[in-house]
Amino acid sequence: MDLLEAIRGRRSVRSYKVDPIPEKKLKVVLEAVRWAPSWANTQCWEVIVVRDQQTKRKLVDTLSKGNPSREAILQAPLTLVLLGIEGRAGFYKGEVCTEKGDWYMFDVGLAMQNLCLAAHAMGLGTVIVGYFDAAKVAEILQVPPGRAVVAMTPLGYPKEVPPPPKRKEIEEFVHYEEYGSR
Amino acid sequence: MDLLEAIRGRRSVRSYKVDPIPEKKLKVVLEAVRWAPSWANTQCWEVIVVRDQQTKRKLVDTLSKGNPSREAILQAPLTLVLLGIEGRAGFYKGEVCTEKGDWYMFDVGLAMQNLCLAAHAMGLGTVIVGYFDAAKVAEILQVPPGRAVVAMTPLGYPKEVPPPPKRKEIEEFVHYEEYGSR
Repeated sequence: MDLLEAIRGRRSVRSYKVDPIPEKKLKVVLEAVRWAPSWANTQCWEVIVVRDQQTKRKLVDTLSKGNPSREAILQAPLTLVLLGIEGRAGFYKGEVCTEKGDWYMFDVGLAMQNLCLAAHAMGLGTVIVGYFDAAKVAEILQVPPGRAVVAMTPLGYPKEVPPPPKRKEIEEFVHYEEYGSR
Repeated sequence: MDLLEAIRGRRSVRSYKVDPIPEKKLKVVLEAVRWAPSWANTQCWEVIVVRDQQTKRKLVDTLSKGNPSREAILQAPLTLVLLGIEGRAGFYKGEVCTEKGDWYMFDVGLAMQNLCLAAHAMGLGTVIVGYFDAAKVAEILQVPPGRAVVAMTPLGYPKEVPPPPKRKEIEEFVHYEEYGSR
């Protein structure tokens, strides 16, 4: 699929078919994570692939009751949980070097976008879920200290693809030469 | 350009031609930012396009002396500075709702990856720079409170494209069903 078409066409999919995903497609999605850029090439992410329905049920319990992604996680054949490796991005010689502290959120964001685009290019849906009890997810998936549970997404064939939510116009978020200058 | 080819082929480019960029290409890059996903579609980012050589020189002074991206920013015809809008992503009914606080770093990461891929698809180079004095950049670009200067990248035609830095194998960062299970 054409890159720009993928960027414009990707939607947050909250309704999935139960059909399994070929291993080959999963591998391409993981390759997309692999090739994301990162702070000094620290590649400060890990991925947990969850297929077990009982584990998915436990994950869903860490989301708030009204979250529409609960059903999505249960429907789709698998869920990918992205972790950040702490203490690498945003560090120089072992010390935090910007006022933002650890940069794993930024780098996991880069990797997640590659993941979502690659999935979309192969006809698969994703929806980024970040609103859950990360401590409980860490317990369920045996995530050790030093690894932060950042976000998860179901991965599967979309049953319904929603229309794009409204976007700001370019003029609304772009400035020239300095802030406030359109 | 094919999406997967773009993901694999994108490099961090630190050497640029001075050739200007057609407005049309810049617009496509900004459209790519526009279509990134974000927390509850908050689109919590802004972009400052800097072409003025004197401003670029000031920006470069906020990077550490040895940073190889200094020269890149001076060479490339323009630099894009990405801001995060504080207090939107990671919030529910006005309150922080995860232990990670503000999620703008994650969402700006998603947008930045779209930007880098779209640039690459049009033959343009980028290199994400996050290691600088953000307070000084905010002062130079008149960025108001409530907006965080997150990262910048030069944008231009590559003079040299470096070979890909080594990546972890998939087996090194992917787990199945729970952490530690390969």
